[in-house]
Formats: sequence, structure tokens, C-alpha cells
Amino acid sequence: MQAILRRGLHAHQVYGANTNVGKTVVSTLLCNAVPNAGFLKPVSTGDDADHTHVQRFSKGITKCLYEFDEPISPHLAAVSPPSNKELLSSIRSTLTSWSKKVDFCLVETAGGVHSPGPDGTSQADLYRPLRLPVILIADYRLGGISSSVSAYESLKMRGYDVHAVLVFQDGYYRNHEYLGDYFTKRGIQFCSLPLPPPKKETGDVDAMTDYYQRESGSLTSLVEELKTKNAERIDQLQSMAERAHSTIWYPFTQHQNLDSKDITVIDSAYSDYFQTFDPKAEDENMLSSSFDGSASWWTQGLGHGNPELALSAAYAAGRYGHVILAGTVHQPALELAEKLLRHVDNPRLKRAFFTDNGSTGMEAAVKMALRASCQQYQWKLSKPEDKDIGILGLKGSYHGDTMGVMDCSEPSTFNERVEWYRGRGYWFDFPVVKMTKGTWQVEDEKFSSLDKVFDLDTRLKSETADRYRESITSTLNSLLAQGRRFGALIVEPVILGAGGMLFADPLFQRTLVDVVRSFDFDTLSTVPAESKTKGLPVIFDEVFTGLYRLGRGTSASFLNVHPDISVHAKLLTGGLVPLSVTLASEEIFEAFASHEKADALLHGHSYTAHPVGCQVAVDSLRQMAEMDSSGHWKEYQQDWKDGIWSLWSKSLVERMSHHPSVDGCFALGGVLSIELKDTTSGYNSNAAQTIQQALLKGTESNVHSRVLGNVLYLMASLTAKKDEIRQIESLLESCFK
Amino acid sequence: MQAILRRGLHAHQVYGANTNVGKTVVSTLLCNAVPNAGFLKPVSTGDDADHTHVQRFSKGITKCLYEFDEPISPHLAAVSPPSNKELLSSIRSTLTSWSKKVDFCLVETAGGVHSPGPDGTSQADLYRPLRLPVILIADYRLGGISSSVSAYESLKMRGYDVHAVLVFQDGYYRNHEYLGDYFTKRGIQFCSLPLPPPKKETGDVDAMTDYYQRESGSLTSLVEELKTKNAERIDQLQSMAERAHSTIWYPFTQHQNLDSKDITVIDSAYSDYFQTFDPKAEDENMLSSSFDGSASWWTQGLGHGNPELALSAAYAAGRYGHVILAGTVHQPALELAEKLLRHVDNPRLKRAFFTDNGSTGMEAAVKMALRASCQQYQWKLSKPEDKDIGILGLKGSYHGDTMGVMDCSEPSTFNERVEWYRGRGYWFDFPVVKMTKGTWQVEDEKFSSLDKVFDLDTRLKSETADRYRESITSTLNSLLAQGRRFGALIVEPVILGAGGMLFADPLFQRTLVDVVRSFDFDTLSTVPAESKTKGLPVIFDEVFTGLYRLGRGTSASFLNVHPDISVHAKLLTGGLVPLSVTLASEEIFEAFASHEKADALLHGHSYTAHPVGCQVAVDSLRQMAEMDSSGHWKEYQQDWKDGIWSLWSKSLVERMSHHPSVDGCFALGGVLSIELKDTTSGYNSNAAQTIQQALLKGTESNVHSRVLGNVLYLMASLTAKKDEIRQIESLLESCFK
Repeated sequence: MQAILRRGLHAHQVYGANTNVGKTVVSTLLCNAVPNAGFLKPVSTGDDADHTHVQRFSKGITKCLYEFDEPISPHLAAVSPPSNKELLSSIRSTLTSWSKKVDFCLVETAGGVHSPGPDGTSQADLYRPLRLPVILIADYRLGGISSSVSAYESLKMRGYDVHAVLVFQDGYYRNHEYLGDYFTKRGIQFCSLPLPPPKKETGDVDAMTDYYQRESGSLTSLVEELKTKNAERIDQLQSMAERAHSTIWYPFTQHQNLDSKDITVIDSAYSDYFQTFDPKAEDENMLSSSFDGSASWWTQGLGHGNPELALSAAYAAGRYGHVILAGTVHQPALELAEKLLRHVDNPRLKRAFFTDNGSTGMEAAVKMALRASCQQYQWKLSKPEDKDIGILGLKGSYHGDTMGVMDCSEPSTFNERVEWYRGRGYWFDFPVVKMTKGTWQVEDEKFSSLDKVFDLDTRLKSETADRYRESITSTLNSLLAQGRRFGALIVEPVILGAGGMLFADPLFQRTLVDVVRSFDFDTLSTVPAESKTKGLPVIFDEVFTGLYRLGRGTSASFLNVHPDISVHAKLLTGGLVPLSVTLASEEIFEAFASHEKADALLHGHSYTAHPVGCQVAVDSLRQMAEMDSSGHWKEYQQDWKDGIWSLWSKSLVERMSHHPSVDGCFALGGVLSIELKDTTSGYNSNAAQTIQQALLKGTESNVHSRVLGNVLYLMASLTAKKDEIRQIESLLESCFK
Repeated sequence: MQAILRRGLHAHQVYGANTNVGKTVVSTLLCNAVPNAGFLKPVSTGDDADHTHVQRFSKGITKCLYEFDEPISPHLAAVSPPSNKELLSSIRSTLTSWSKKVDFCLVETAGGVHSPGPDGTSQADLYRPLRLPVILIADYRLGGISSSVSAYESLKMRGYDVHAVLVFQDGYYRNHEYLGDYFTKRGIQFCSLPLPPPKKETGDVDAMTDYYQRESGSLTSLVEELKTKNAERIDQLQSMAERAHSTIWYPFTQHQNLDSKDITVIDSAYSDYFQTFDPKAEDENMLSSSFDGSASWWTQGLGHGNPELALSAAYAAGRYGHVILAGTVHQPALELAEKLLRHVDNPRLKRAFFTDNGSTGMEAAVKMALRASCQQYQWKLSKPEDKDIGILGLKGSYHGDTMGVMDCSEPSTFNERVEWYRGRGYWFDFPVVKMTKGTWQVEDEKFSSLDKVFDLDTRLKSETADRYRESITSTLNSLLAQGRRFGALIVEPVILGAGGMLFADPLFQRTLVDVVRSFDFDTLSTVPAESKTKGLPVIFDEVFTGLYRLGRGTSASFLNVHPDISVHAKLLTGGLVPLSVTLASEEIFEAFASHEKADALLHGHSYTAHPVGCQVAVDSLRQMAEMDSSGHWKEYQQDWKDGIWSLWSKSLVERMSHHPSVDGCFALGGVLSIELKDTTSGYNSNAAQTIQQALLKGTESNVHSRVLGNVLYLMASLTAKKDEIRQIESLLESCFK
């Protein structure tokens, strides 16, 4: 749904702090203050409809979209209510048709801000996709200070900008004095007005005419202010790309290749869509609806602008702010630790360690694992050569941008020019899974369904498994023979994201874990044989793959492996704020126990387990788990039939896999990945950018996507609507024609 | 202010969604549903006072604390209003005196949730320090759905727990049906009641008596539920320490030394105080007010539970959630970048790079500086020895817990047992500033005031400056002669926090910067002499010291130095959520420009510039700057007279410096630091813990503090109240007796 912003049309949504606070009288006054006003009442109940009143007492255009006779809340009055989508579309097309005729217009709501719309949705939520600037009519009656301030807060926490507050003057209760101070302090235009004549059986029309004539001039300057604010909003948006270009240092961006006109200005976001500003739409609507095709760097789970998460964040902010988590505990931190430990359903994992993002969560994981393996094999750190403990991993892995975890990945474009980078480890090559020409394939092996690829019980008995096992074992033997030393295995289960959406053969990953766990990494032979424990700690980096991103609660469950450490972030907070939790087994935890403080895990950021993040994570986990157990994704699952499923349709993946320019593709959970044929591969490739550009040119809505070299991927939130996903799929296919 | 929680006294705050929704009738019904009820009306206006009604129709104890005759809002009715502190104290002492007599009690507010209290503060804010569980009386009238939901949101975003919602049944508007669904879905007890008889001139008493008799039984089960919730809350708090002990892996904590009974359970926090749970107070009040003496690991600026910051966070969550910051821009990110660049008032700094915390902000800073110096001196990374570029710094420095920035500090307790730690650099020893026996001293040099220590214009001409300059220069010469190579200077200006609150001689820091900037670090002598630029990039780690923590907008201003890179976090968000900004000069930025994507700064977390953090930071920066310009700290500044000032009193520092067990002390901005005499110094020392323990035993309120070895420090937020600070000072002094 495209929001509305036009230079020539100063449109506002009129909300009331309560019912009967005089919204329509104020609207009439505002319409009388300009020569060409428009008044739109989307939904009206009761027989003396508001738009008729405005029509009678002003010269503006008026319209009501849906009228219901009974003077009760629309959700009760409406017999066959329009859908919210229809309602919003009608508002948008009405305003569009008015854009040449009026320059100031009001879209008046019914009742208070949270009064239900026809289908029962609170109006503040229902109209949010339009995010029109708000004129709030405050309540002049006893108790009106409270309802006005609360209404303001409810609007604000939904991302509305309140541009003006108006209220009638009541000399006895004097709400206008208090509210005037309150809103002026917050930079909001405030205006108080004499009360209209009391409603009487007769003479009402004359008295109101008098009133409107008397007061008509008083709002002229306010209307001018509102027009100025609208112009300023557009000017701001107009200038933002240029200002950002000269101020912000963008992550993962070669600025020499970045032109200010390539910077997308995002006015707001809602569900799966951005509202982006179109600087060229001088006389047209200046906002476009743009599907967030990267799920905002893989973070989005429960939709942008989610009012439940906003309230959840505000609750924790109001209850605590931040409180130090050292020798203390607060409810959201404890609840999250317990909930996440239950969620991963891994009997090994017993301890939750908090950090701020996936990268720092992995730094903690590496520190944990190295300590445990050094203790296990009695490696000391006294000699410099004893410090050369490496990581076992997979080629194409990526665990974050801090230098410690950069060292956990093999040399690549991502790190080779970081002055302090020193890859410390060995990285196994592995076969990938993809659909090519309608068939799921791993190397030369074909599978009748994706389910079969994940059927590890069967596949572990196959020759492929034997081959994997032998190859891994012999590699490890030869590495140890070279004097190499390793302290942990790190795996991104199933999909290696930043490495290019590499869908690793789950059989290979599983076999790697199995071999590493049974292998003797002792390099000193000073450990008495009888005390030898084998293997290395296994770290699963679930930052991208966990928490339903691939359709399951954990990505470890695809491999049926219980790691010793697992790291969770991104979706953990439903896509709102940074937070990471590193879970560890009691054995790992015990490796830090001693009588010396210095042996402890001396890691911890100031905002460790910040209540806002923890509370949002608790509520996100709850909501995701509820969606899972209530069959929220049933329709998608039925589309795929096998246990493995995706938000993206099975038939789309099949069709794409036949396309001549496609090398292979797959879909899993929220992820769709298409590898294009290209001469240069890897991060430096410029393939896929043609499709990326074409996706930006969609008409009804476009798609903002990211590419990884020659891989184009799309990612949707867990709450994405099926019809919208299917519409994006059509757009995608059209870009391939 | 101690909040109220007792096992035997089930106390609730009754809030109304609006005025005239029947709060008092519902309260009367509730009081009739138990044998021993108490009804407290803190503030009543109008002659037919609510507590008289409850008194007439129930057997409970009733009391009104402040009565005003006129039936208008208390802020207008009160002639000489009580202070909020008095009001809260009266409530607390009333409930305490009732605790043996009643087991269920209600504290009824006036009007709606935001109706102003006697001094004009919204009741929702005024009563927040008590954080009693809430019974919300919803509005049964037309428009009541909206006002009820908004009232709920206003309470929730202040950290209240709403335990029950009650509403009258109106068969026509049927709000109770909608609200019943709404609140039940959110796990809140909901109850609807028949409307009481209409108010009539006569017969009111009889009709009401009938009504109460008829309905009295209907709320018995609700009251039981409320009592159960109260008991559950206490049981939860009771169990939390034990559960945390077995689930949470604490940062910087040797778990072997941690007993579950040493874990402080924090129920909530407000302004500078935690509400901590006292598990031993079986029959007494179970919450204590505890001053947050570490400013929650140095993060707090604008007070815990700040409703403005909560709304600011909720606004950004509602407007955006998170949006990807790659090739895009959103208002809060741009506004923060521009605002912070203006704030630091450093003509060199032109670019803002976002990360999630101080540690990652420093990782980015190091990557930036190393690239710039390698380019400047044409060092290549092709040969392994060319990778050996170190950092120049100060002994006792600390820049975060990720491994890359751990390598920027010299070997110490913090890093020596981290398997991958390799200190890369050279760290200068430096003289410290402290007050000893009433005199400010740096080594043997005495100063008449702290101002004189910072008078660098004069001191730069002194012999001490010459000595510093020569010593630093000769050290650098000898390091280069050994073949060492350096890429950046990193300084925590003025105070090295984690190293033990080391107050470095500003003259030394300034001289170090000056020498490093004029020194030739070329180690290849392949660079043609004419193209030589001298010096190294200077990074200021202002994570702890910046943004008014030391009383000034930047800590760089104390040294009158313009660094090339500066890193900001902690106070940046006023103390709410993690966020860091690394600012850099255009020269540093340009070092990453090339035609190759791989040369870019390939760093960036998924939640880069998350709108919630950026918006909160924008609003925090605005508020802090307003406090500065409006003379908010004038009283403290007058206490110190010289330009250098602290929230902690000058006389306290003087007195402490004379104490026989004190080695030295200082105060600067929000920081008070006391170094105790001790045989073992450093992080492993157990000194200062005696004082720390004594501070926890304060009576009216206690102090939760952190120690750094033999250094005890206290830190207050920027909004700390003077009388409270002075009270903490008295407590501190009493602990030294």
C-alpha cells in the first residue's frame, strides 16, 4: 500500500482524543480557512453524518466512503464491512482524484484513536500504512487532559507524526492551558478555540453558521503552518540522500561507486514494505511501496512498525531503562534465557551468555570453545606456539565483522584487506544443494524432493556418507601431521548466508560434526590415554539460520545435531533491536571455573542483556512459537507437501530452475535464492544486478533487494501475507523474461 | 523511594480510563468482596469525596490524604499542593500502618491515567516509583474502547503491570465484548459488571445499597486471582536469584565465587534507583530502594524508566521497526549523524559510521586507522612481516571485549587468559592526577585547583611538558630502531575507566598526541621525502568519557585536541539501548576509496543504525545539550567554582582525601573515584569491597556499586537530584568511619 505524500495536496488525518470532542466542528473550521479544501470521512455511523455537516457549513468538497446508520462503533454497525485494504485503497484513490482540485484535505476518523474500524481493527493501526500527518482534536471536558495525552502517546508509538493539536476552551476545566504547555513543549502546533454553541433542537443551523463565520479566520495561520510542515517534510526527504551521501559512512559500501541518487530514502516502514521517497515525482505521489526483499539484512520476523513490539520495547524502557547485569538479574533477561534454552530443545545447552549482536555473540562462543578445548587437551598458553590454535570450519563461512571472528573464516574478499586479519584455521570445501532444471541435486546425485536431501537417517548409511567420512578424516590426519592444532568446529547449519547463500549438503555438515566429535585432537601426547576425551566443541552459528528463518525453530534440527554452543541473534528480537545470546553446555561453562577471577569469561558489554532487547525477544519468541504451534504457515506447508517448506512457492522454484540464465536455485523457510550463470563468481561479481534493478521498477509495488555476487535472494518476514508474496513472485518472474 | 510489596498486603493502584467511568463504584465492590479491605484516596477533589462513598457502602478502612473542595483537576484545585515526594511518602506510610489490619487494598487515582496530580505531574508518572500493580477501570461509554486501550498503553509504556481490567456492561455500545477479547488475549484478568443504578436526587443510597448487595459476590473470584498474582509476583522474585544462578552466564564473573544469594534481584528501576528484592523480608516490605552507583555500567544519563525515552523508542519502533542501512537512509540515522558531528565540534570529523557498542565501534576505528596509516606510509600487506602493525596507547587502557580491540591493550588480567589474545602495540606509562590530603597532585607537582591541572596553555610551556616530550620521543625512536611498526595512537581522554579509573595527567595525554602527530613513522624509507606526511591517526575512545560523563560534551575538549577518529557509545542513547557511532575525518574515509568493492570498509552489523537506537540517541543528545545550555548543573558548578566541576561535592572529595585509608581520590562530572590503600593493587585486589558491602546496608536507601580492584567509584546519571547525591555522600562517609 503506497502512502500519500504530494506537494500540492496537504493531507492530514484527523484523530479525536475521544468521541464527541468536536472533530467535525474543528474540521469544518479548518475547511473554511482555505479556499480549496477537501473533507473525507472514510467511515461514518449514525444518521446525522459528519460529512453532511461539513458540506452544509463549508465550501469544500466532501465525501464519505462507507456509511452505516446506527450511531455505534463501526465494527458493530457494519453489516458486511469492507476489508482494510479496500478501505485504504478507496482513501488513496479519492485523494488522488482530488489532488488537482483541493490543496488542503482532511481524512476524519470516527470516535477516538483506538475506536475500531469496520472489521474491528483499531483505527490507529488500520490507517497506519498511510501514515498521514495527524491533527489531534483534544478533549476539553473533565478528564480530557488524560485522554488527550494518552491518545497522543498511542499515535506516537505507532510512528505517527502529530502536526497539530486543537481543543475547545472550557473556562472551568482549563484543559487548553495544560495541554497548550504540554504540546508546545514537544514542538507541536497548538490551538484552542471557543466552544461552539450548544446543540439545541431548533436554531442549530443559524447558531453554527454564526459560529463558523465568527471563527473562520482564526485558523488561517495554523493551516499555513500545516502547509509549511508538509512542504518541510518533502524538502527534508528531498535533501536526505545528498546529506546522507556526505555524512554517513555506509557499511560494506565502496563509496566511490555510490552516487547520492542511488541512496533510497525511507520515510517509514510497515509489515514487509518500506515507504520510499521518489525525488522525481514532483507533481505526483512521492512515496512508493517497496518490498523489503532482504528482510532488512535478515533481521525481520514480525513485520516493520509492529505495534506489539513497540509496546513491548516501551514497557521494558518504562519499567527499567537499562540495568547492569553483573551480580543482578531482571525478569526479561531471565525469562529470555530460560525460554531460549527451552526453545532450542538441546539437552546439552544449559547456560545463556548475552552480547549485543551476532558478531560479538560469536566472539564469546570462540572464547568459550578455545578455553574448553585447551583445558580438555591440557594445552597451555605459556609458549607462543601453543597459542596457534585454529578453527575448523567451512569454506565461505562468515561469522561477523569484529576481527576475532573474521579470523575464523578463510581468506576472502571480506577480510583480505583488513590489516589485522589472520585466518586461523582450516576450512573444508563442501557440496551444495540446488534445484537445477526441476531437480534437486547434490553434485551428481539427484533427489525426488528436498525432503529426501534432509533424510539423514537414510543418507548416513549411503556411500556418499562413507566418502565424506573418509575424506574428512584423512584431511584431519594430514593437518595434525603438519603440526596444526585446532580448538573448535564452527558451522552455519544448512545455509552459509554471507558466503553467498550456500546451501550446504546437510549430510556433509552432519558427517563433519560426527567425525570431529569422535576424532582425537591431542597434539601433545602428554595426556594419559585413559583420561582422553575426544573431539572438539561444536559451535553452531544460527544467527542467520535459526529461529524459523529456514522454517524451523532451530537450524540444528535439520541436521539432528546438538551443538555444544549455539549463537542466536537477528530474528531473536523479531527484527527490532540488536541482541545476541550465546548458549553453552555446562562442560563449556565449567572450563572457566577456578578460584581465580582472571579465569572467568571476562567479556561483557555495558548494555549486556538490556531489558528492552530481552523483553522484545521474549515477546517475539512467544509469538513465533505460537505461529508455529497454531499452524500459521499451514498454507505454505501444504504447497510444499514434504516436511521441508518455504514461504516461496514450490512451483516458482521449479520454473526458475529451468530458466536459461539460472544456474540453480532453492527456497527454504523465508529464503529464496537464485544463482545466476556468470563468468565471474563470488562477491565481486556484478551479476544479478540487472534483475535487482528491474525489481526496483515494479509498478504496484517494487522490491528492494540485496545481491551476493551472482546470487539474487529474496527474504520475507514470518508474517508476510501470501497474496503479497505471490505478487512479488510474479514481479520476479517478469524480470526474468 | 521504596516501592511497596508485601506478602500479606495485596495492594493495587486503581486507574481509570477516563473520569466518571465508575472507579469508586468498582472499588467499593472490590472492598466488599473481602473481609479486610483498605481504600486509600491520595488526592480527592469535589465535595462528594470518593472515600466517603466507599466508607458508606463498605466495611473497609478508608482514608483520603489530600482533599480539595472544587470538582476540578487537582493541579487547579490545590492551593498549596504537597510535593510528589510527600505524597508518595504518605501513601507508603499509610499502607505500612495498614499492613497488619487489611490484606487487600486499593490506592485510587483521580480522573484518568494522565490526569495531573496536585503539582501538575501526570499521575501515571507521579505514582510510578511505587509501581503498584494496576486495576484499570475501562470506559463503558461511546468512545470508551479507544480511551481504555490508550490508557492501557500509557500505563504499559511506563512499566506498569496491569493485573485486571473491569468495565460496566452497556448493552448498546458493548465495549465489554471488544475489551474482553482485547485484554484476555493479553493475559489480563477481565471482568464486566452490571451498570449501577442511575444517579438520582433521592433514593440513591438505597439503590446503591441494593446494587452492592446484589453484586458483592461477583468479584470474589477476581480478588482471589489478584491475590494469587501478588503471591506469584513474590514467588517469582523469590526464585529468580536461584534460577539466574543456574541459567545465566554472567559477564566478568567468576561463577565459582558467586553464590545465588549474592545475586541482586531487580524488580524495576526509576531515576537513579533500583527497586531490589529482599528475600529475607518475609513479613516486611520486600523491596528496597538502591542507588545505581555504577550508573549501570556507566550507561545511565537521563534516568531509569524515563517515559520520554520510552516514547522515543516506541515511536521509532512504530515508524520503522528496523530498516537496513545499506544504500538507504532514514531520518533518525541521518539526524543522529549530523547532530553528533555538530556536537563534537571538531572540524576534522566529517563521517559517521554506525555499530552496536563501544567495542565494535573501536573495532571499526582500528580498521579505519590502520588502513589510513598503511596508505600514508605505503605499507603493503603482501609480506607477513608487513602485517605486524601495532597500536600506540597507554598502560591500563581498555577498549572493549571483542578480540580485535583486546589486542589494542597491553597484556593484563583482562586478556592474558584469552587464548587468541596477542597484544599488538606499545603502551606508555603515565602520571596520574589525584587529590591527596586536600591537595591536587601529579607526581610531586601540586596544584591549587583542578582547573590548574587542566590549564594546558600554561602547562605546555613548563619543564614537565619538555620532560614528557623528550621521554615520548626517545621511546618512539628506540621502538622504531627495534624495527617496530605502528599504525595508530589510541587514547581514552582524561580517565581510563576499566583500567581502574586512572585519571591521566592531561598534559601527558596532550603531549603524547602532539609528539605522535609530528613524528615520522616511516619504516621503509621507500617513500620519497617530499611526499612524506608525518604522524599517525589519533583515535579517541570517548565511549566512557564523552557526552557529559565528565561534565563536558566531549572529553577531547579537556585536552583541546581534535582527534582523527572518535568513538561514542554508552551515554549516547541516554542509557537505554546499545548503539555506537565512530566518527572519522575525510582523510581517513578517503583511504578506503578505490574502484574495487573489496577496498571498502567491509564492516557492518545487521542492526546498523537501528532506528530505535538512533531516535533515542537524537532525543538524548537534544536533552543533554539543553541541560547544558540551560544551566541545569549550575548549582554543582557553583560548588566547584572553577570551570571543572562534578555532581559530587568538592568538600566531600577534600574530606575523603584526608582519610587514612584513602590513597587518593577525585571527582569529575558524574564520576567519584576513591583509591584505597592496599597491599595488592589491580583488578585482583579485594580492597574496596568492605566499603562496597557497607554501602549495601544503608537504611533509607542503599547503594549498589562496582569496584575496580582497590578503587571504589560512584557514578550518577546527569539528571541525579542534588539532595539525593548529598544523601549518598553522607552514607559513603559513614561507611568510612
